[in-house]
Amino acid sequence: MAVKVQKFGGTSVADIDRIKHVAQRVIKSVDQGDQAVVVLSAMAGVTDNLIGLAKDASDRPDKQELDVLLATGEQTTAALLAMILKSMGYKARSFLGFQAGIVTDQTPGKARILDIQSNRVRQALDDGNIVVVAGFQGANQNGDITTLGRGGSDTSAVAIAAAIKADVCEIFTDVDGVYTTDPRICDKARKINRISYDEMLEMAILGAKVLQIRSVEFAKKYNVPVHVRSSFNEEEGTMVVNESNDMESVVVSGVTCDLNEARITLKRVPDQPGVSAKIFMPLAEAEIIVDMIIQNTRSGGETDVTFTVPKDDLERAMEISKKVGEEIGATEILFADDIAKVSVIGLGMKSHSGVAATMFQALASENINIRLISTSEIRISCVITDKYAELAVRTLHTAFGLDRE
Amino acid sequence: MAVKVQKFGGTSVADIDRIKHVAQRVIKSVDQGDQAVVVLSAMAGVTDNLIGLAKDASDRPDKQELDVLLATGEQTTAALLAMILKSMGYKARSFLGFQAGIVTDQTPGKARILDIQSNRVRQALDDGNIVVVAGFQGANQNGDITTLGRGGSDTSAVAIAAAIKADVCEIFTDVDGVYTTDPRICDKARKINRISYDEMLEMAILGAKVLQIRSVEFAKKYNVPVHVRSSFNEEEGTMVVNESNDMESVVVSGVTCDLNEARITLKRVPDQPGVSAKIFMPLAEAEIIVDMIIQNTRSGGETDVTFTVPKDDLERAMEISKKVGEEIGATEILFADDIAKVSVIGLGMKSHSGVAATMFQALASENINIRLISTSEIRISCVITDKYAELAVRTLHTAFGLDRE
Repeated sequence: MAVKVQKFGGTSVADIDRIKHVAQRVIKSVDQGDQAVVVLSAMAGVTDNLIGLAKDASDRPDKQELDVLLATGEQTTAALLAMILKSMGYKARSFLGFQAGIVTDQTPGKARILDIQSNRVRQALDDGNIVVVAGFQGANQNGDITTLGRGGSDTSAVAIAAAIKADVCEIFTDVDGVYTTDPRICDKARKINRISYDEMLEMAILGAKVLQIRSVEFAKKYNVPVHVRSSFNEEEGTMVVNESNDMESVVVSGVTCDLNEARITLKRVPDQPGVSAKIFMPLAEAEIIVDMIIQNTRSGGETDVTFTVPKDDLERAMEISKKVGEEIGATEILFADDIAKVSVIGLGMKSHSGVAATMFQALASENINIRLISTSEIRISCVITDKYAELAVRTLHTAFGLDRE
Repeated sequence: MAVKVQKFGGTSVADIDRIKHVAQRVIKSVDQGDQAVVVLSAMAGVTDNLIGLAKDASDRPDKQELDVLLATGEQTTAALLAMILKSMGYKARSFLGFQAGIVTDQTPGKARILDIQSNRVRQALDDGNIVVVAGFQGANQNGDITTLGRGGSDTSAVAIAAAIKADVCEIFTDVDGVYTTDPRICDKARKINRISYDEMLEMAILGAKVLQIRSVEFAKKYNVPVHVRSSFNEEEGTMVVNESNDMESVVVSGVTCDLNEARITLKRVPDQPGVSAKIFMPLAEAEIIVDMIIQNTRSGGETDVTFTVPKDDLERAMEISKKVGEEIGATEILFADDIAKVSVIGLGMKSHSGVAATMFQALASENINIRLISTSEIRISCVITDKYAELAVRTLHTAFGLDRE
């Protein structure tokens, strides 16, 4: 007998028929003797509809009240699945986030889970119930409803799995698992059977949308085995687990591509202490997330500072940069939004040299110019012109031996 | 400065524009220095849509989970109104039923309020907030979501008004107040300015849909002044208050008509002790509410027993009656669903004789045959053939001097 947390996303609960299909899937585990906690998202499209309603109500909807509004989406699917399971003769009951003991901080719209008081869920399981939890939501310490941000149901599921010490957290989705790269870009993309938390984290950060970033952080912290698999078939998907020795034999596990960044350059900035702070403090205060930062020293005590920001924030970031640029005497403020960031990720980089060289050579062989480079222990990212993005992904996929046979 | 509870029903919050109109209405009070608790229903039609969804999910949706599902309707409107009030620059916040401290019994679908722990609402008001409460819902002592039954938002509003000792509970609706009879049937119907709790209770029980029965019971028990008024204009509506001496000068306050009952007759039942119990116990066990009961003694130790039940329960009631009738030796079991119950209600009946005589005479003058009669201290009801219902209402309205000039 295993204890399983099973999470189903929006397309898996898109209508009553799909929710009935989820019920079938859940009882298959239960009939084998497993205990199951099922975590659900809102029906596909519902969250967007609710946001639309809020925007009709107010140009800038209050975030706290938006959470109260959005939480209805998951409440609806949780109640419906529990109903269906009961009408099939199974003991079941729904829990809203706060009832499941999900305690978060006070940040509306992207609350972080502080604690899971899982005794009620645990008790319901021990009483023989299939426990259905409304994902994406919790309550802060005042008892106000909060939500966990886009994809938050993944985090609900992993956090509950950690709290009840589940054997596995299954993330059912509309794809077969985690792929070496986006199969829509590269038809030789392969499903990855096992991937480490760190690699998955890098891939999630770089735009692989299969898991919410925080859910991976949670899984890593509490060592929760996560199984990403399809809700449409019975195939094994991708296990996201602690790194093991055999993983490092693969140098690169995946290639990602992110088209959502833009580049800003401040030309001929005085190369003095404190100048960087003057540029980046106001951006931080405006809650604009700066990703890559590159500084090219020029002659004559001057330097060019280049950085990337999310495209959605480009306009505000340019306003701030122009103001700062004037203050610090930059001669020019340039921007480009026709960029793409391609990255290769792999635990193997820790022990293999030459990965960067292979990457640069592969891009050069297709005459793709590299504008910016940044690296982490298990990742190398290059900013290139966006029109080469797909070619770059396919080239790197081949160069690192990831292509399907 | 007054403390007001203001309840707005489904048509008053039917879309974002109507909810904005509600916001305008609320701030008018607040700008005058009042403290306001606003209790909202779901948008018109939403509850029925959710019930439809539940019926797609299951032939007999689990009642507990149905409550979880239905509670989303009021959650949505409460969040939207709070958003709108905040975007207009007012301090506001929404409370779900359980957050507002509405503690109910365990009966899903028609839970009764046991207690209101109003300290959070009280505190929010004292902090200068407009408090927006999701009506129709609460939580039982286990923390499970419950709902209060059709029209339950009225009861939420009155109960909160009682708990915070509000000066008035305003029920905003799509009519101008409580009328002497249904204006769609009788164009001479007049709006009643003041009516006692007891009269209002009789009228609610008899099918005047302007207030939920339980809300009136609550108002009476805690002496909450209720003001039923239109959300579409500024006119004074109807005050529902404790009876006062001047009220009794009017003999009859209103005329009602209920078309939702059916009649069952068991012919030639042995006139022996215990026979009535044999007939009505199984109906009570099936949760069928029996309204009027009439027994006509025949010669020869036999009697005919006639009673009325809601039309929706007629089929089940007939099954039970046939079974019982066989056991006790009734010769025939008859039913009629072409009946109407017309009633006159008035505190004045306590001190005026001849009301029944006037009623019977008025019906006789139009050749309307009376099938059954039942009375209470402040009400006389006659069952007639349904095709005469409207004529009977108009005739009685005139006979008791209720017609508008």
